Amino acid sequence: MSALPGTRGRLGRVTEVFIAGVGMTRFGRRPEPLADLVLEAAERAIADSGIEEFDAVFVGAMAPETFLDVSNMASVVVDHLGLVPAPAVRVETASSTGAALFDAAYYAVASGKVERALLVAGEVMTRVSTRRATTLMTGVIDGDERAHGATMPALAGLSARRYMHEYGLTPEEMALVAVKNHRNGVANPHAQIRKEITVEEAIASKIVSDPLRLYDCAPISDGAAAVVLVGGARRGAVRVAGLGHATDRLAVEMRDSLTTFASTRLSAAQAYRRAGIGPSDIGVAEVHDAFTIFEIIGTEDLGFFAPGEGRRAVVEGATGPEGRIPVNLSGGLKARGHPVGASGLAQIVELTWQLRGEAAYPSRPARWGLAQSIGGLATNNLVTILEAPR
Amino acid sequence: MSALPGTRGRLGRVTEVFIAGVGMTRFGRRPEPLADLVLEAAERAIADSGIEEFDAVFVGAMAPETFLDVSNMASVVVDHLGLVPAPAVRVETASSTGAALFDAAYYAVASGKVERALLVAGEVMTRVSTRRATTLMTGVIDGDERAHGATMPALAGLSARRYMHEYGLTPEEMALVAVKNHRNGVANPHAQIRKEITVEEAIASKIVSDPLRLYDCAPISDGAAAVVLVGGARRGAVRVAGLGHATDRLAVEMRDSLTTFASTRLSAAQAYRRAGIGPSDIGVAEVHDAFTIFEIIGTEDLGFFAPGEGRRAVVEGATGPEGRIPVNLSGGLKARGHPVGASGLAQIVELTWQLRGEAAYPSRPARWGLAQSIGGLATNNLVTILEAPR
Repeated sequence: MSALPGTRGRLGRVTEVFIAGVGMTRFGRRPEPLADLVLEAAERAIADSGIEEFDAVFVGAMAPETFLDVSNMASVVVDHLGLVPAPAVRVETASSTGAALFDAAYYAVASGKVERALLVAGEVMTRVSTRRATTLMTGVIDGDERAHGATMPALAGLSARRYMHEYGLTPEEMALVAVKNHRNGVANPHAQIRKEITVEEAIASKIVSDPLRLYDCAPISDGAAAVVLVGGARRGAVRVAGLGHATDRLAVEMRDSLTTFASTRLSAAQAYRRAGIGPSDIGVAEVHDAFTIFEIIGTEDLGFFAPGEGRRAVVEGATGPEGRIPVNLSGGLKARGHPVGASGLAQIVELTWQLRGEAAYPSRPARWGLAQSIGGLATNNLVTILEAPR
Repeated sequence: MSALPGTRGRLGRVTEVFIAGVGMTRFGRRPEPLADLVLEAAERAIADSGIEEFDAVFVGAMAPETFLDVSNMASVVVDHLGLVPAPAVRVETASSTGAALFDAAYYAVASGKVERALLVAGEVMTRVSTRRATTLMTGVIDGDERAHGATMPALAGLSARRYMHEYGLTPEEMALVAVKNHRNGVANPHAQIRKEITVEEAIASKIVSDPLRLYDCAPISDGAAAVVLVGGARRGAVRVAGLGHATDRLAVEMRDSLTTFASTRLSAAQAYRRAGIGPSDIGVAEVHDAFTIFEIIGTEDLGFFAPGEGRRAVVEGATGPEGRIPVNLSGGLKARGHPVGASGLAQIVELTWQLRGEAAYPSRPARWGLAQSIGGLATNNLVTILEAPR
């Protein structure tokens, strides 16, 4: 029995939580309604788990109200899944929604009050124009900064420019993140973009927000992911080993630094502590690369590399498939796609496949996998650590 | 140690959960931004609890994206509360959001992984026109039924008409619910409407959707409520004794009946089982009366009265302040107001005051209190049972 903080309830040991099944749709431009995509992902996770009845359903979507004019999502989804009268709740934390959903469902199962939980997260973003989708995403930013013209790519661009200034990162080096993730995504049947790109193509693509170019940004996507969580060990099931979650000031002007995100560092520390391991134990990771610079910063904030060393890690291939810590073997948000409410859960689906040895582009056999998800401009970040079946 | 289902984890007893503090704003037409209302409620709950640091923040709001064009609510709120870097998550289940939020936070504390949770729920609805607010609320209804003109008052009107047909309820008798709740609300300093009304005034008010008139409907409101939950007993703290949560088909045409809601019956059965008590043990209740007919149906679905007897209960005063089971001593949604995302949590705040003997309009001393919240047209309902300090 572990004496680590967070592994015991006040009155006794709490239930251990395992992933009994996972599934996801292909990401991309999808013609189906959101509820159909969610159903497709859920059916795959249900089939994978062999479980057909659920004590609770957790639904993640960032903004169906504005992307689709759909509300009451929890009820829409549980009805469409044919799971009425199971309790259903919707969880949202902007672009980290899928990870926050996992957190909320984890607590329910860990409490012992829910034995079998179905988690589904999805987003349909392509019904509106790219311009409109970008405007809607801008809503996550501090109101004053938004009023002065801040957009997500603009703020990420500030971050990239500052990182370049502090550590000498070049646009060509930053583009290596996109080149790697595009190459990884070729093997992934669920990926939106399965096309290799070169550094030359990346740095010739159009400017989105200087110094970020088109290939530095994840696409706008539709898609859904699903997970079945259960209380108590099951043969062959991946264990939820540690979760971390932290917030940061909404206004970027209130931050001490643009080249490191406190919300990642704090959530990583919490997740490592709960799992009883450290960064060097992680064998495979999914890191939120909505912008290439975020992956570089993320690998530092997660403790894989020292501050400023994330640059060299990319150049030397340390985050590549054969590197010390393979990052985004799925293609990441960059190539798999980024349906905002689903991405955090899709990372966990991918890690589950990795830890079960079933991934499309497998890592070396790994005991520990880590997913990191960013909400807004790192205002609401989560880290999830999973352990391979033993 | 109890052997009831839901009271034990697989590997041991889980943490008991207590309400350490509560607070709310006055409901009504409020000029402040939503974040300010939430802060006001939170500051009161924090002062009431004597706790100043929180392991997690749970944020409830139904539709700030459409009522206010605000997104990333969890981050907006935790930042405005000055509680960064505490983890923050937003929960939503339409008009039962506040109750679902309580559920999610309860699980986190019961798991033993969160010791001190701050729960805040708020909504600002009056920035848009009443017509626009009503249209936005229509979004919770099944798409096909909405396309045929269904609105929330229209569907509640169908329910009232059917109840009248089956059980002989008259408009004058239905109006007694509004008369009672308005009279109760006069004492409540947080209530939006503190004005007694007569049956004559009620049945002379304008038709909203036949047979529902203006005084059969809760108002459109702004407001916020807050609760501090802790793991483990505290002196003078109300205990969370039982929760229930269930869904129903979205489309009303798929229901067997319009005069009873399966989602309430199932969630009540679950909450009673977990608390180890029955309907006759409840000493005070808050029942979701967005429409007067909902309170009548609710008191039957909760087991306080047999089907069809809710009518007589109103006529005979069984749900009045001196009756067998006082319902909505706060004034209910009808007079306290109904800021949709906050109402479910406001009910719990009121019950806490009742069970601590601090309510503006107190019941006879009660050991058990019950709150029932309706999401959409009873698509996502919750029941919460609380136990007085011992």
